[in-house]
This record gives sequence, C-alpha cells and structure tokens, in this order.
Amino acid sequence: MNTDISKNISSGVSKVKGYVPGEQPQTTDWVKLNTNEFPYPPSPKVREAIIEQLGADGAPLRLYPSPESAKLREAVAEYFGLGREYAFAANGSDDILNLAIRAFSDTSKSVAALQPSYSLYPVLAKIQDASFTQIPFNADMSIPYEKIFASSANIFFFTNPNAPTGIGFPEEAVRKIVEGSNAIVLVDEAYAPFSDWSAAGLVREYDNLIVTGTSSKGWGLAGMRIGWGVASPKIIEVLDRVRDSYNLDRLAQAAGVAALKDRAYYGRMRALVVEQRRLFEEFLDGMGWRYFKSSANFVLFEPANARGERGANVAESLFEFLKGMKILPRYFPNEKRIESYLRLTIGTAEQMAAVKDAARKWAQL
Amino acid sequence: MNTDISKNISSGVSKVKGYVPGEQPQTTDWVKLNTNEFPYPPSPKVREAIIEQLGADGAPLRLYPSPESAKLREAVAEYFGLGREYAFAANGSDDILNLAIRAFSDTSKSVAALQPSYSLYPVLAKIQDASFTQIPFNADMSIPYEKIFASSANIFFFTNPNAPTGIGFPEEAVRKIVEGSNAIVLVDEAYAPFSDWSAAGLVREYDNLIVTGTSSKGWGLAGMRIGWGVASPKIIEVLDRVRDSYNLDRLAQAAGVAALKDRAYYGRMRALVVEQRRLFEEFLDGMGWRYFKSSANFVLFEPANARGERGANVAESLFEFLKGMKILPRYFPNEKRIESYLRLTIGTAEQMAAVKDAARKWAQL
Repeated sequence: MNTDISKNISSGVSKVKGYVPGEQPQTTDWVKLNTNEFPYPPSPKVREAIIEQLGADGAPLRLYPSPESAKLREAVAEYFGLGREYAFAANGSDDILNLAIRAFSDTSKSVAALQPSYSLYPVLAKIQDASFTQIPFNADMSIPYEKIFASSANIFFFTNPNAPTGIGFPEEAVRKIVEGSNAIVLVDEAYAPFSDWSAAGLVREYDNLIVTGTSSKGWGLAGMRIGWGVASPKIIEVLDRVRDSYNLDRLAQAAGVAALKDRAYYGRMRALVVEQRRLFEEFLDGMGWRYFKSSANFVLFEPANARGERGANVAESLFEFLKGMKILPRYFPNEKRIESYLRLTIGTAEQMAAVKDAARKWAQL
Repeated sequence: MNTDISKNISSGVSKVKGYVPGEQPQTTDWVKLNTNEFPYPPSPKVREAIIEQLGADGAPLRLYPSPESAKLREAVAEYFGLGREYAFAANGSDDILNLAIRAFSDTSKSVAALQPSYSLYPVLAKIQDASFTQIPFNADMSIPYEKIFASSANIFFFTNPNAPTGIGFPEEAVRKIVEGSNAIVLVDEAYAPFSDWSAAGLVREYDNLIVTGTSSKGWGLAGMRIGWGVASPKIIEVLDRVRDSYNLDRLAQAAGVAALKDRAYYGRMRALVVEQRRLFEEFLDGMGWRYFKSSANFVLFEPANARGERGANVAESLFEFLKGMKILPRYFPNEKRIESYLRLTIGTAEQMAAVKDAARKWAQL
C-alpha cells in the first residue's frame, strides 16, 4: 500500500534534512585531511585491550556491557582529576550533544551557539523542535559576551577550541560565559587535546557547566565512537535519564579506558601534530595567505591565487586542485563568512609535505 | 556555585526517572538468565572479522566509520531478501526504538503499545514528552485489535514474539494491525530468531511498517550493541534524518556483517536453545506450573510452592532461592499482571539442569 507517512512525522523532524558529515572515502589512497582525524594509529594498548576483551572465542561479547560504562567513567574522572560522580560516557561526543539538547531544550526552552561553530548544533535543536539562536562572533572573531547573555538560551554550546576556525579561548572566557549566563553551558572540547588547557576542572565550581570530549580527534579513535563528558552530579543524573541503557559496547568501553590511560604515547604523538601545525602556519605566512592561529589539529586559511585574488571561487579552485591530487581538505561553500577559506587537518610530516607541494603548484597556475 | 538546574530541564525529561535495565553482575560465576542473552558465543567469524578490522596496529580505528553502515545495511537487506534501500542499522535496536519515537511522536502525536510488553517504550515516549497509551492484552493474552485501532496512536509498538510473555503471533496478526491502523507500526522482533517467521518481508507491501531486530538476543552479541531495522525507503529516509551521523563504530559494523552471514552456525545454536526451551516447558508441565507457551528464548512461568500456593510472594521466594544459588532469573514485582511469574532465559543444557534441580528443591521446602 502506498501510504502517505508525511503526516506521521514529528514536528521537529519534519523540519530537518539531517546533518551532512564530511566525505568519508572508503579507499585508502587519499591524503584525507577533511574531518580532523588523528594522523597516527591509536596507542598499541588500545588494540591489546580490544583483543583481551574478545577472549579466545568471543564469548564475552555474549553478555550486555556495563550499562553505565563504569570503568570508562572511572578513567575519564581520573584523567581529569575529578571524582567518578562527575563523569559520563557515550557513543561519541555527538551523542552527548544530542542528549544535552534533549535534556535541556524543548519547544519553549531555546538553544544557542556562536557562529561559525559546529554545524551539528542547529540540526540537533531542530530535531528537538527547539528554537535555535546563532550568535555571530565579533568581526575579529572575539566573543560577543553581551549577546550571549542577552540570548535567553536555556542551553548554550561553546566550542573550544572553536571549529572551524581553530581559535582557542582561555579560562577567563569560559568563566565569564558560565558566570554571566543563566543557561546550561556546554563546552565542546573535541579539539582541546591540541590546546594548552581544559575546562574540565571547572565543573567542581559550576553546576551549570558540561565539558565534553571525544576520542575521535585527539586519541586516534574516530572509528570507535567514544565520547565523554564531565559535569556536576546534578547534570550527570539528568543525562543518565535520557541515554540508552547500554550506550557503549564492550570493545568501545575497553578501548576508551586503554586510550585515556596511555598519556605518554599520546603526549608524544600530539607533540608531532602541534609541530606540523606550527610548520604549516609558517608555510601560510610564507605564502602570504591569511589564516586563524590554531589551537586545534586543523588550520582554516584563505588561499590567494597567482593574481592575488581571494574569495569563494578561489577557495573552490584550490579545493578541486587538491582533490585532483587525492588530497581532501574541507570547505564550506554554504557558510558565507568562511566561504573563501579551506580547513585542513594537520597530518603527518609526509602528508603535509604533499599538501605544501600541491598548494605551491596551484599558486603558480 | 550551587545553581538550581531543575528549571533548565526539558519538559519531557523532567517527567522521567529513566529505564531500569536488568541486573548485570560483572562477575562470571553467575548462571545469568535474567536478560535473555544467547547462551553460546557468537560465530567464530565475528571474532575474526573484528581482528581483521583492527589491522596489525589498530590504525583503521583512526578513521571515521561508514556513516550509513553501508556493508551492514547490505547484509541486513540480504538476510531478509530485500533491496538495500529497505535497510537501516543502529547502536542496538533500542536506538531504533528511540529514533522512531523521535521521528513519529511529539506533544501532539501519541505512542501506544500493548501491556505487558517491553517497558522501555513508555520511558522513551515520556522523554519525548509524547502521551503514551497502554493497551492491555485481552485476558487470554490475545490481541485487542479494536482497542489498537481506536487508540489514535501515531506510532504503535508491537513486540513479536512478545516480551515478557514469550507469546508469538502469526503473519495474519501483523497484517491485521498494519492494515487496520493509521499509525506507523513498529514490530519489535528482538526474539524472532527463536520463532518460525519474521515480518521483515512485509515492508515491501506496507509503507507504514518498521520491523526491528537486534544481534543481542539471537546472535550472541549483546555486548556489541548492533541493531537493525527494515522499512519502506520513505521511513528509512526519516530515520536517517534523526540518527547520529556515525551511529555504529567500525568493529560493530564488521561484527554485524559477519554474524548475519553465518546462518549455518546460528541455525545450529538456535536449535539447541529451542530444544532446551521444549524440555523446560516439559519440566514445567511436570511440576504443574502455569506458563505461556514461548516462541522466544525465555519462558514466563508461575511457580507454585509445596502448599500449591501461587502469587507475588511465592514468585519472590523462588527468585530469592535461585539467587542464593547464583542463578539469576528476572521478576517483575511492579507489574501487577505478572507479579506472580518469573521470566527465565533459556540457557545451555548444563545451566537448565542447574535451574531444574534448584526449582525442585525449592518446591519441596
């Protein structure tokens, strides 16, 4: 029977098209620098922990996992020097963003975030049928505090370091937002492992603060969907009401614990990323291309062609040129403010050499 | 700062306490028959597929998984003899139940399910701030069709085989519900692998039908959180709008494919479960205890003590006695209609022998 199901669709979902994630080519011959993955494998201890979980015959997979991801929450708490009651774990930090939207917004409780920032927030708000306020950064990409305070949002998302600009904001900025706002403030720290601080410790002081993190960017585990959050026990209790009872599988829980515990390995590997970032910013300086000084594992830059022109067409030209050489950056043709920019994930030394070579060739066309 | 965050909680979430899942003892010395896990390990091919995904150094985990779980959707479609456009995959079938609630209910679009059935449905409806109608089964546990049609639900959940009774309903029943209802009908087939049919093929005929399945019960993978659904492409498109972009990790996707493809292994292992179910029902006949003839991997039965008494206290007495022997069944002290029953997952021959021994001892007390 050909039934019209459109009348059955919920009010929120009827308004959305769904978030479009970055391209994920499934062949391995790409220099894939479009979705900010870590350029190195995860700690060898992650693989060991997964194989240990499997046992000789996979039998442990037969049983439900720990519903609250007990050991992973312990590892998260320990990582940030907090008590276990402050920690939460979920199926990627996107899952926590979604749970926070469900817990703290509805048709009469609104959501706000700065613009530009992570484009998933407005999609999640729409699905929830909550109104969403985009608050533009000031022209110099500084924080428009008074607009945030005036927004009357019930939950405010603050990406720090920001994506897609890469700009990192200091502790005073987070304190000022949290103290000046009546909202639940969610600081999305996907990229904090590449900056010099985390707001996690502040959850001891502020009951209205949630700080989220993910193993996808800073731990080389985008393929495993492991996210975490820290917040006051009051907030954790609310998030626990909304999440799936078994939101993380056994292997993801084990992988997350192993990753968080191997600080030495990740310290070394992240230092390599930060060094490549510095060298790429030097390269951009040499090219005379504008960029935002990055505290993340990517750089947003505005290419100029041989005639010194900038703009959406110029960015697209470099994007297509790089793609032709199987190098994949990200660009944002639908975001007016940054349409003349490309965002490039920082890769290995070899990958970055390939990018620079290609960019130099393009600039001489 | 001690802030009152209760005013920030969304209307739906402020009304819920969260679903309470069955107890998950994390030690291995229990005969754990309370949450309907498969008693045998998953196919050896599942473990192989996971290890293959890991590669020599875990490097594949660095990259995001296929956002739409492409190969798993193909495997689901192939398993049910459907085109790929009918298939969906998610983080356990609970995730699909949740997505369906979000897609097809809101403050003015209501949810209904039969009573007793899976106790998660009303929790999910409340979180969504949607009204929920419990429609009691007829006294003989047959389906009250007219009440379903009169409920004006926008989405109706039908658990088949039912939990916690284990009763399986035939194709005519599903057709009658789908054809007689204006609702989206979700047939939750968590236990269908232990029955003799699946409604999956019917999605070719009905645009308002969703059939969900899970690897947790029939494939020995409760620890992996792999769920799937089949439905008309119209419905799949709506579910895709709501789900997380990367809702299944790489290892879960690979495990799901390997499990669905190994029909021979699961055919053998499920036959063992079905045979133990038959023997347990024979045992209950011998004891003179009432039970519902099961099409699932558990049996809901009403124990009688040495004095021939039945009731909530009697069920609790057997529950505690079994627990004292480290055998864990499930009971439902808060569900009036079945408070005198225990639900026991069908285990291995050895586990079932232990249960019968213990039950006989208790019955002589």
